[in-house]
Amino acid sequence: MHPKTPNPKTPNPKTPNPKTPAPPDIVRAAYAELVVTDLARARAFYVDVLGFVVTLDTRAALYLRGYDELMHHNLILRAGPVPAAARLAYRVRCAADLDLAEAFFADLGARTARVPAGATPGVGEAVRAEDPLGFTVEFFAAADYAERLQQRYDLRRGAEPARLDHFNIVVPDVRAAYDYHAALGFGLSETIEDENTLYAAWMFRKQTVHDVAFTGGAGPRLHHLAFFVHESHQVLRTCDILGSLRMEDHIERGPGRHGVSNAFYVYLRDPDGHRVELYTSDYYTGDPGHPVLRWSVRDPRRRDFWGHPVVESWYSEASPVLDLDGRPRPLAPQQQTAEVTVGADGFTR
Amino acid sequence: MHPKTPNPKTPNPKTPNPKTPAPPDIVRAAYAELVVTDLARARAFYVDVLGFVVTLDTRAALYLRGYDELMHHNLILRAGPVPAAARLAYRVRCAADLDLAEAFFADLGARTARVPAGATPGVGEAVRAEDPLGFTVEFFAAADYAERLQQRYDLRRGAEPARLDHFNIVVPDVRAAYDYHAALGFGLSETIEDENTLYAAWMFRKQTVHDVAFTGGAGPRLHHLAFFVHESHQVLRTCDILGSLRMEDHIERGPGRHGVSNAFYVYLRDPDGHRVELYTSDYYTGDPGHPVLRWSVRDPRRRDFWGHPVVESWYSEASPVLDLDGRPRPLAPQQQTAEVTVGADGFTR
Amino acid sequence: MHPKTPNPKTPNPKTPNPKTPAPPDIVRAAYAELVVTDLARARAFYVDVLGFVVTLDTRAALYLRGYDELMHHNLILRAGPVPAAARLAYRVRCAADLDLAEAFFADLGARTARVPAGATPGVGEAVRAEDPLGFTVEFFAAADYAERLQQRYDLRRGAEPARLDHFNIVVPDVRAAYDYHAALGFGLSETIEDENTLYAAWMFRKQTVHDVAFTGGAGPRLHHLAFFVHESHQVLRTCDILGSLRMEDHIERGPGRHGVSNAFYVYLRDPDGHRVELYTSDYYTGDPGHPVLRWSVRDPRRRDFWGHPVVESWYSEASPVLDLDGRPRPLAPQQQTAEVTVGADGFTR
Amino acid sequence: MHPKTPNPKTPNPKTPNPKTPAPPDIVRAAYAELVVTDLARARAFYVDVLGFVVTLDTRAALYLRGYDELMHHNLILRAGPVPAAARLAYRVRCAADLDLAEAFFADLGARTARVPAGATPGVGEAVRAEDPLGFTVEFFAAADYAERLQQRYDLRRGAEPARLDHFNIVVPDVRAAYDYHAALGFGLSETIEDENTLYAAWMFRKQTVHDVAFTGGAGPRLHHLAFFVHESHQVLRTCDILGSLRMEDHIERGPGRHGVSNAFYVYLRDPDGHRVELYTSDYYTGDPGHPVLRWSVRDPRRRDFWGHPVVESWYSEASPVLDLDGRPRPLAPQQQTAEVTVGADGFTR
Repeated sequence: MHPKTPNPKTPNPKTPNPKTPAPPDIVRAAYAELVVTDLARARAFYVDVLGFVVTLDTRAALYLRGYDELMHHNLILRAGPVPAAARLAYRVRCAADLDLAEAFFADLGARTARVPAGATPGVGEAVRAEDPLGFTVEFFAAADYAERLQQRYDLRRGAEPARLDHFNIVVPDVRAAYDYHAALGFGLSETIEDENTLYAAWMFRKQTVHDVAFTGGAGPRLHHLAFFVHESHQVLRTCDILGSLRMEDHIERGPGRHGVSNAFYVYLRDPDGHRVELYTSDYYTGDPGHPVLRWSVRDPRRRDFWGHPVVESWYSEASPVLDLDGRPRPLAPQQQTAEVTVGADGFTR
Repeated sequence: MHPKTPNPKTPNPKTPNPKTPAPPDIVRAAYAELVVTDLARARAFYVDVLGFVVTLDTRAALYLRGYDELMHHNLILRAGPVPAAARLAYRVRCAADLDLAEAFFADLGARTARVPAGATPGVGEAVRAEDPLGFTVEFFAAADYAERLQQRYDLRRGAEPARLDHFNIVVPDVRAAYDYHAALGFGLSETIEDENTLYAAWMFRKQTVHDVAFTGGAGPRLHHLAFFVHESHQVLRTCDILGSLRMEDHIERGPGRHGVSNAFYVYLRDPDGHRVELYTSDYYTGDPGHPVLRWSVRDPRRRDFWGHPVVESWYSEASPVLDLDGRPRPLAPQQQTAEVTVGADGFTR
Repeated sequence: MHPKTPNPKTPNPKTPNPKTPAPPDIVRAAYAELVVTDLARARAFYVDVLGFVVTLDTRAALYLRGYDELMHHNLILRAGPVPAAARLAYRVRCAADLDLAEAFFADLGARTARVPAGATPGVGEAVRAEDPLGFTVEFFAAADYAERLQQRYDLRRGAEPARLDHFNIVVPDVRAAYDYHAALGFGLSETIEDENTLYAAWMFRKQTVHDVAFTGGAGPRLHHLAFFVHESHQVLRTCDILGSLRMEDHIERGPGRHGVSNAFYVYLRDPDGHRVELYTSDYYTGDPGHPVLRWSVRDPRRRDFWGHPVVESWYSEASPVLDLDGRPRPLAPQQQTAEVTVGADGFTR
Repeated sequence: MHPKTPNPKTPNPKTPNPKTPAPPDIVRAAYAELVVTDLARARAFYVDVLGFVVTLDTRAALYLRGYDELMHHNLILRAGPVPAAARLAYRVRCAADLDLAEAFFADLGARTARVPAGATPGVGEAVRAEDPLGFTVEFFAAADYAERLQQRYDLRRGAEPARLDHFNIVVPDVRAAYDYHAALGFGLSETIEDENTLYAAWMFRKQTVHDVAFTGGAGPRLHHLAFFVHESHQVLRTCDILGSLRMEDHIERGPGRHGVSNAFYVYLRDPDGHRVELYTSDYYTGDPGHPVLRWSVRDPRRRDFWGHPVVESWYSEASPVLDLDGRPRPLAPQQQTAEVTVGADGFTR
């Protein structure tokens, strides 16, 4: 069904790079900080409608988590003048990994900063870096634990988000994003490609399809944050609630079944335009030598297994990102053929 | 799979009785009034946990409905000294049916009473009767309409009950209960029987498996009220919520699949011990000559299609009922072999 | 949320027409006959993929039913040179209703024909008519019963269709279609309208939202047949199976939640282009004076509660219909403003 | 809600044992071999009813896998004279881990054996050992890959098992089982305990609640194999199919929600009495220092979150296990208070 021969022009997960210093042992995508222009309006969307748990409300920012999450937060919403993604944070295994992270990025010539424990509520000492793709990423090992609410079904509302699942980022050169994350120790689960081009890739640290994925386009931009839910009816219910509230224009794409990842999904847009995916039913990738699933860019099922066209905004719109000093990063134009152009005939009926 | 030959000793739905006056044209089981000993505690159970909509709160009584219900209420909870079922109310097609109801019960020698419009909030003029089985039943045609909340998914909580589905009553003689309801114009959908005995029967006016069913035992007592929900995950979720609240002892039996009716179900007990069923996925019975499905009392799947034994309390416990004056009705002992005795070997593994 | 004042220019369900003879007592939409150009290919779609039960295979035609259906069939697929809908069949209550049907259509000046029992396998004597809208409709009372397969979960496949739910027909004048069906005794559940125009209407005999609905356009054409399934995950699963088989282009629209009817749906196209809806979770309409739900044509949620635009083919494409002699009926152009034009701004984000 | 203070008498996951040699790096519970007395009958149960995929049929044995599984098999059914569990196999990260496994068990004084690649079809070189608890365990790194069937929804049947999730074993001394598995590098996710006794424990290598769990009783015996399914409706459907086939007595316990693990479950018994769990919706445990959830043995929700009593057979019955030579292992009696005795008052209503 899918091409099985490794493609020499596309990534091969078994090629280590001896020149790079040892990367930190990344555990998983842990949280993101989004700048929102109206915190009350954002709270209404994320807390009242989607059902996120509020761990902390400082008036300047909200610290939210899912019902399965044991850490302090999966999402920070911080009030600011312009919508943006301030940083993407990964948990690492132990304190020594902070040193490895610092050395790894120094070797790449990237700006880094040490952040003391508590600078972010609930998070221990951290290293931040402006990564080669232009994103501000953070690595931390220690975290405060929050009350376990997994079995508080009485409290659950909305989408009943369980935990953060992954980041999806927009990059001008998907192959470069792959190479950098491979050097950081990420495994490859799936790709969209043709003979010449890698259009998209899904890479993981935890034992799921991904912690990070790449969409081609002008970048750096954040394409979406994805939150795991347990069953598909929770995705449907979220859409029903949005319809009830006449917020149906927050439903951008789906619900549907992804070809890539096999997950059931919906994409929402928050009041500032940040894109949120609800995501369920992907698969285990923890075995050594986990085989890569390569999708042809011409398979109309790759983005939606039911063959539905992807709405244009999903390919073109994304959130700006901030540098270490909180300033917007300039965009570089896409450096490769756009997937939507090549794949477009797949949309025709 | 099921016995197909009509059983001469068990009911045959095609036998009309020429001696009885024309019955009222009953539309469906519409609402019940339960006496509860602590209205705040009952409200917490039905409204906060199960998610019923409050149409009216008079402090002496609560008028509740499901999210699909367009009438004023499906359930009245009235504060009183002893838990009981005060009456079971059926909607009839038009005002003339009230006269038919009065004549029908007069012919049976039953006490009846006319109740003016508004005596029950939201309900038009009604006829009440002490039926031959000892239950106080009500018939009304006019009703106030409540706000349509079906598509207010934002308001739904708990079990998301849609509407009342049916009454299940405990009677000493199931065959007598069948005969009386057949005379009232009810159709027969399913039975539990053997060569000699009718152990249970399901009878309908609306186009579902039943509006009323009979369980053998000392009676008259109310076995349970059943509320329709749309999908099985809503039944599971209700149990999860009860577990979260450490109210798991309110879950008496199930969730499971019924053999009879094919519905997915759970039986709960409210704080006063009244039994409530959540019920979904039965089938259409509206065709003329709808064929009766007859279950052998020896088929262990009849009560639970997965073969699980029925808990003892489900057979033995039920709510007392009140007469027209609000006084408890005395119980007559069961007049036939108990189903649990005959069917018991089906429970053995 | 919805306009509550009856609109003098749009249908009022309480207006009987004294000039029309008594209509037959229609029970429900019972079956349809579709002409398909390749019976093996149609069988693969309906039986192997969607999971319909084959009651009879005559080589010239297939007689299919759902798992809940107790009648002989819900769908006849007959081999023929050109895809078409040959007739739409309603069950009536008793033999006398055949005479009423004949008189009703004779009064309308419509051609009718008596069809002897067995002319259609499994169906008793019938009356067929070319109705005022140009459709060939059939009325029958007697039917053979098929084996009850409802609890044969071991046999279920695909969409696990339960039974036929409704017909949706394309008519040049929706108000005329409403008037004719109101005279036939259909109740009105929902509409799409504005101050001047009735764009669509849903009408019922059985106690659900509809047995027949009208879509505006050049007609007479069959818009779709809808089959009931019990839960939404069965709809999702059907799409997953179609994706697996690379038949994703048979998924035309959805899955989604309807505003009208509140049902969860998907629209499929069979190999001949006939449209099939899988439909679940609508609501009970059996009470007298059931209130009509009127949707504004400008509410983007009316066709999809999640606000997704309706694909163009869904409005423009439909199946030709045949007359009593099996000849294609000519099309009359749409006589009113197209819903898609007026409602289009609802699709803009 | 749950005791949070670490209990000195119960396991503390942070205590490493410096005396033990480095354990192999175990990836996950991979497969089990069961001896069945009638292979055709076992095939009918696992393949025709539960829907397992057959990778290989040698006539002497069946090699089965789930739809998500990329390895050759999750379950071997081998024909033999007496039902038994022949071995439990774990995948390790690389070939060097086979040497570590051999040294680890030699240090414990356990019998071990090297098994060449291909001795088990689809599995590379392996080390087998008779572990201190009396179970024959296997460790292998290399495995053949099978066709990826995850998105072949057209092929799915029955329970649609995705992959093996965990082993549950019966041991006379749960604390000893914990200590041994902690030395092997397993993390602890949940326990059932009181002030004096560890009644049960759940331990993991992959990032789920467990790869192995311990039930107290005469041992060594295999309590059950658990297979992951994606959604709860797949569990319900499996029970419906078993009812349809009059195989309802294969449903031993559930469906229900576990307190421990929060998973939705059902326990089935195969034709030889081997117990199989279908299991879904547990949670991520991959973070460093994952907090242990400790359940009081007196909480009636620990085994069933809905408070239902555990059937007696679930505590008392289990499969015998074989030694390295394929001979049945003798049983040692339970060495601690039985959970069912202490927890029993939890079952009383």
